[in-house]
Amino acid sequence: MVRLLGIVALIGLVPAAALAEDAVSQGLFTANNVWMMLCAGLVFIMHLGFATLESGLTRAKNSTNILFKNTFIVSIGILTYALIGFSLMYPGDFNGILGWVGFGIGTDEAGLTAAYANGGYTYWTDFLFQAMFAATAATIVSGAVAERIKLSSFMVFATLFVAIVYPIAGSWKWGGGWLDGAGFYDFAGSTLVHSLGGWGALVGAWMLGPRLGKYSGKRMNPIPGSNLPLATVGVFLLWLGWFGFNGGSVLSADPALTSFTLVTTCLAAAAGAITAMTTSWILATKPDLSMTLNGVLAGLVGITAGADTVTILGAVMIGAVAGVIVVGSVVMFDRIRIDDPVGAISVHLVCGIWGTLAVGIFSTNPEHTLGAQALGVVAYGVFTVASALLLFGVIKATMGLRVDESEELEGLDLAEHGGHAYDFGGTKSGIADDPAIRPTLSRPATELVTEL
Amino acid sequence: MVRLLGIVALIGLVPAAALAEDAVSQGLFTANNVWMMLCAGLVFIMHLGFATLESGLTRAKNSTNILFKNTFIVSIGILTYALIGFSLMYPGDFNGILGWVGFGIGTDEAGLTAAYANGGYTYWTDFLFQAMFAATAATIVSGAVAERIKLSSFMVFATLFVAIVYPIAGSWKWGGGWLDGAGFYDFAGSTLVHSLGGWGALVGAWMLGPRLGKYSGKRMNPIPGSNLPLATVGVFLLWLGWFGFNGGSVLSADPALTSFTLVTTCLAAAAGAITAMTTSWILATKPDLSMTLNGVLAGLVGITAGADTVTILGAVMIGAVAGVIVVGSVVMFDRIRIDDPVGAISVHLVCGIWGTLAVGIFSTNPEHTLGAQALGVVAYGVFTVASALLLFGVIKATMGLRVDESEELEGLDLAEHGGHAYDFGGTKSGIADDPAIRPTLSRPATELVTEL
Amino acid sequence: MVRLLGIVALIGLVPAAALAEDAVSQGLFTANNVWMMLCAGLVFIMHLGFATLESGLTRAKNSTNILFKNTFIVSIGILTYALIGFSLMYPGDFNGILGWVGFGIGTDEAGLTAAYANGGYTYWTDFLFQAMFAATAATIVSGAVAERIKLSSFMVFATLFVAIVYPIAGSWKWGGGWLDGAGFYDFAGSTLVHSLGGWGALVGAWMLGPRLGKYSGKRMNPIPGSNLPLATVGVFLLWLGWFGFNGGSVLSADPALTSFTLVTTCLAAAAGAITAMTTSWILATKPDLSMTLNGVLAGLVGITAGADTVTILGAVMIGAVAGVIVVGSVVMFDRIRIDDPVGAISVHLVCGIWGTLAVGIFSTNPEHTLGAQALGVVAYGVFTVASALLLFGVIKATMGLRVDESEELEGLDLAEHGGHAYDFGGTKSGIADDPAIRPTLSRPATELVTEL
Repeated sequence: MVRLLGIVALIGLVPAAALAEDAVSQGLFTANNVWMMLCAGLVFIMHLGFATLESGLTRAKNSTNILFKNTFIVSIGILTYALIGFSLMYPGDFNGILGWVGFGIGTDEAGLTAAYANGGYTYWTDFLFQAMFAATAATIVSGAVAERIKLSSFMVFATLFVAIVYPIAGSWKWGGGWLDGAGFYDFAGSTLVHSLGGWGALVGAWMLGPRLGKYSGKRMNPIPGSNLPLATVGVFLLWLGWFGFNGGSVLSADPALTSFTLVTTCLAAAAGAITAMTTSWILATKPDLSMTLNGVLAGLVGITAGADTVTILGAVMIGAVAGVIVVGSVVMFDRIRIDDPVGAISVHLVCGIWGTLAVGIFSTNPEHTLGAQALGVVAYGVFTVASALLLFGVIKATMGLRVDESEELEGLDLAEHGGHAYDFGGTKSGIADDPAIRPTLSRPATELVTEL
Repeated sequence: MVRLLGIVALIGLVPAAALAEDAVSQGLFTANNVWMMLCAGLVFIMHLGFATLESGLTRAKNSTNILFKNTFIVSIGILTYALIGFSLMYPGDFNGILGWVGFGIGTDEAGLTAAYANGGYTYWTDFLFQAMFAATAATIVSGAVAERIKLSSFMVFATLFVAIVYPIAGSWKWGGGWLDGAGFYDFAGSTLVHSLGGWGALVGAWMLGPRLGKYSGKRMNPIPGSNLPLATVGVFLLWLGWFGFNGGSVLSADPALTSFTLVTTCLAAAAGAITAMTTSWILATKPDLSMTLNGVLAGLVGITAGADTVTILGAVMIGAVAGVIVVGSVVMFDRIRIDDPVGAISVHLVCGIWGTLAVGIFSTNPEHTLGAQALGVVAYGVFTVASALLLFGVIKATMGLRVDESEELEGLDLAEHGGHAYDFGGTKSGIADDPAIRPTLSRPATELVTEL
Repeated sequence: MVRLLGIVALIGLVPAAALAEDAVSQGLFTANNVWMMLCAGLVFIMHLGFATLESGLTRAKNSTNILFKNTFIVSIGILTYALIGFSLMYPGDFNGILGWVGFGIGTDEAGLTAAYANGGYTYWTDFLFQAMFAATAATIVSGAVAERIKLSSFMVFATLFVAIVYPIAGSWKWGGGWLDGAGFYDFAGSTLVHSLGGWGALVGAWMLGPRLGKYSGKRMNPIPGSNLPLATVGVFLLWLGWFGFNGGSVLSADPALTSFTLVTTCLAAAAGAITAMTTSWILATKPDLSMTLNGVLAGLVGITAGADTVTILGAVMIGAVAGVIVVGSVVMFDRIRIDDPVGAISVHLVCGIWGTLAVGIFSTNPEHTLGAQALGVVAYGVFTVASALLLFGVIKATMGLRVDESEELEGLDLAEHGGHAYDFGGTKSGIADDPAIRPTLSRPATELVTEL
């Protein structure tokens, strides 16, 4: 830029077109890149949304375990995406099922200029935004297998799922692979992220079996969440994060398209909340907070495939239908005794499928067909179920998948981490809890070291 | 843009002014729109701020109820704003008291270009930003009527308040109506949002009467909040959200004006915190967290009417005075036995009035007069009190306003929603809580369905 | 802009260079300023991150006290930075150890244009971003002295630390002072913010001595945190905040540099999490959430000095080493009986030093030398330790530093603030807690007033 202006100063008057294009580029490129970095940050905060939602909707004796898993996933997800995921997912010119450009990340000067992605963002922003996406797929699984999966087993699964399964699947559409060529459309990932995670969640929940005491005889025993304010924090953070998830999937800050996408996203979320609330209220005669929160997420997952390509009314309808579907789906999975503590399968898999098919129904783009959408749904279903069966199967055969009964009853926090997530001692009665005289039921791992 | 550049290529050199203006427009338009979308997201997250603040400052037995209400309000608020609110509030050329441009939202191509709002944002960003504002007014009411209002009654009130009362009131000033013509100034809504919600809160709290046990004989019984960390999360999120509430009210990313507005906003918030802390410390001899938090909000509400038009010193003074006022007001409302569990009336109504009048005192714009400001305060007061009396009155006569005594004592979570917000079983003693053997005191509504 | 275009219209064709530069400036200036305002907001939310992290990692009987301190610090920090801090830290042309340009803040027209900082941001954005930084240094101290320091004493210390110590120290490098001339490099504050706060934390924790019951004989008694979900919320908010802390330290939205900085920042955070997790798992045979969370922060603090100037691999290594260091440091400080309830000294001081020295090892800029980095570490260490000793020493001699034993046992919430942070009464048993008949153990200060 400085160099160019130097030349300009030499010649006084230059062909205005070239100069203006450059002028536009730098301001526009910077604004685009700011938006995309912001969106990467918003998708990042979705990981906190998942962590708080999942620990809020499960029992307090397993909260540390869930928080640990989610902190691990986002960390290992970013690292493996840098090492192999970005390469697997965006292998450049590619129209097949498996591509590769090499280990690690890096770019030349061109990756830092407006030439990289039509001025939408830099190479580094591209990587960061996609890396934040990658880890969400594994996080979705975490909720469905909560409260009974062995920590180390989950960590192995999640690492391979985020490092290999997600990027390969992603390459088929977003990397320009075979499904992109087949006319399949998934704007921001109803299928590529949410159904993918949802299929993994279904396989995991099915292979693990239900939590102890969840089903006894013909009876289904409710296991209420431990901290609904925390769960609500999670859902609002996820909704906010979706501003970046969908808004960033425009891949630039194009004013018309980004703002339209945010509007369809928010309308679908709102509609999902209202219909899930109403449906569960009618069915159960009480207004249910958890279901209303899941209705928000159902609407968000549903609109994700077509947020840029449906009408305003279409967005409201997609969200509204998703809100009804999620309630029915939760009831249905409970009937067939797939125990999903947070409703992740219903939200992400079922509403992800709905949203993907809905593009074939509501899209204003005649090139989007129900057939191509169904093809994508089936292809991702087959691939992800097969991958998850393989991963969970090998892990089950080698490491084992599920904790002991005694550990499950005691809670994973104490069993796996040696401590509780909450301790409100000293707040009710005002009686001092002198640690010197308190029996030490829980001892944080790192503090034990000091006695060695 | 592409089309224009093509023409440029044909003619080689073009009149530079036209071209440069276009060049500026696209980068600047995009940057402006990014800012405004970000601000919409920040105002959105204020709804989480209100939800956590209100549930933190009230009793744990009513937390689910509050979270439910707040999730409902933001959802119904966005939907009704799309259906009728945006039309009522911005009816185009208009200088009266009631305008209308039709049901629903939608735009032509021009709404997506820099032509729409002088390059400040697109039609969709405009809608989204205003929609996020709309729901806040009803949320303010929610805090004051907490812990005793009937859920369904509140839902009817909130829906009509956000769908009709707020947009009509808004049209008088921001829609270009009669108060705009009268010289009234309210930059971001000390009156249009906060006092409006505050008047509704006052009418609601007065009609409902105090919570059981709050006042006995000459005695006022304190009812402390259940979760101060949650309340603190709420206030910090609200402060952050105010970056968008005030910063976005510039209606572009104008660097000078937006950045100045953020500085006055933060200084007023900080000053309000310090003076509310000091005032309550002196009066009660103990430093009070809730009051300090309310001091932050008092400063924010106070600066909102004039954040763009006062000096730095003026901003500090407005915030500082608001911090004193809010403490006095809380004490005063308790004396006259208006029971406001979270201090919403003091924060939003009283400090909203203060902030609106303060524009007449501290504005650097000589056109802003105390008379016009007082006119606005009175006009909005009369209209909102009348509206709230009508709405609450009809609801009281038909549905009833208040829950039964037994429901109030039991808590709204169990009475209205059939479950608790918190369950920390299993974390203190490490004893397993097998759901199969635990007496089921609370059963989430949706899970009951599975037994039908 | 308008004026310029008017002239342009008069002359038809103008020298294109001048015009294009202006055209670029407005869009680019606006985009830059949007980014910097966003970054100020992100650094602001770090204060909520610290508040929730610290109250989550300490006992529930001291949570209100911590939240109060953090709310106070950010408020007083912004106000004092406006009054004297900004002036002390950026005294204009300056290469010494103490500069000053006068009380208060304010600017002429030039401060609002692209001329102010090469189009990076306005004067007001500059102030706000730096003000948000300022208060973080004092907040770091808060964690290390938690659960036993006298509130008023801490408030005096924090005020002077943020108002005087931090800005003077900051002026040496970022204000263009003597250390800047000496070749010392600290991109975003591994030393200027984190070590500075860390030194203060070390002096404070040492002068206060350990919490009652923490060490008995040869035994170290663990004092686990009360609310790990809250602590996790804190760390994720801090990570998000670091997007602004490091990304904003570019001082413009330069696409290449900002996006690269975010990538190094996130990779270091992720690497720190994984190595801290692994290290503590190996040492203590259990995976520890608190240590993993501190590993995230260790990586972030470590990368902060060189986020813009190391390679991708360098960033991963800096974070990975920081994650190991933080675990070892926590163990070490426990052995030498410096009681730091949240690990602030290990995270901010030790990893801050590591990150600063790491610039000398990993920087791609040959001008960065280990010698200059070590000089900076020592200079800031000497100055901050001396300042903290002076401040804490005078306060100890006059006001006293530590609460009474009985107050410490009872908890600071009840002793200093007259109430508890949490009250979950009514949620487990469903039995009503009528405030009229409940013995009033805690009474919020402000409500007492109404009985006077």
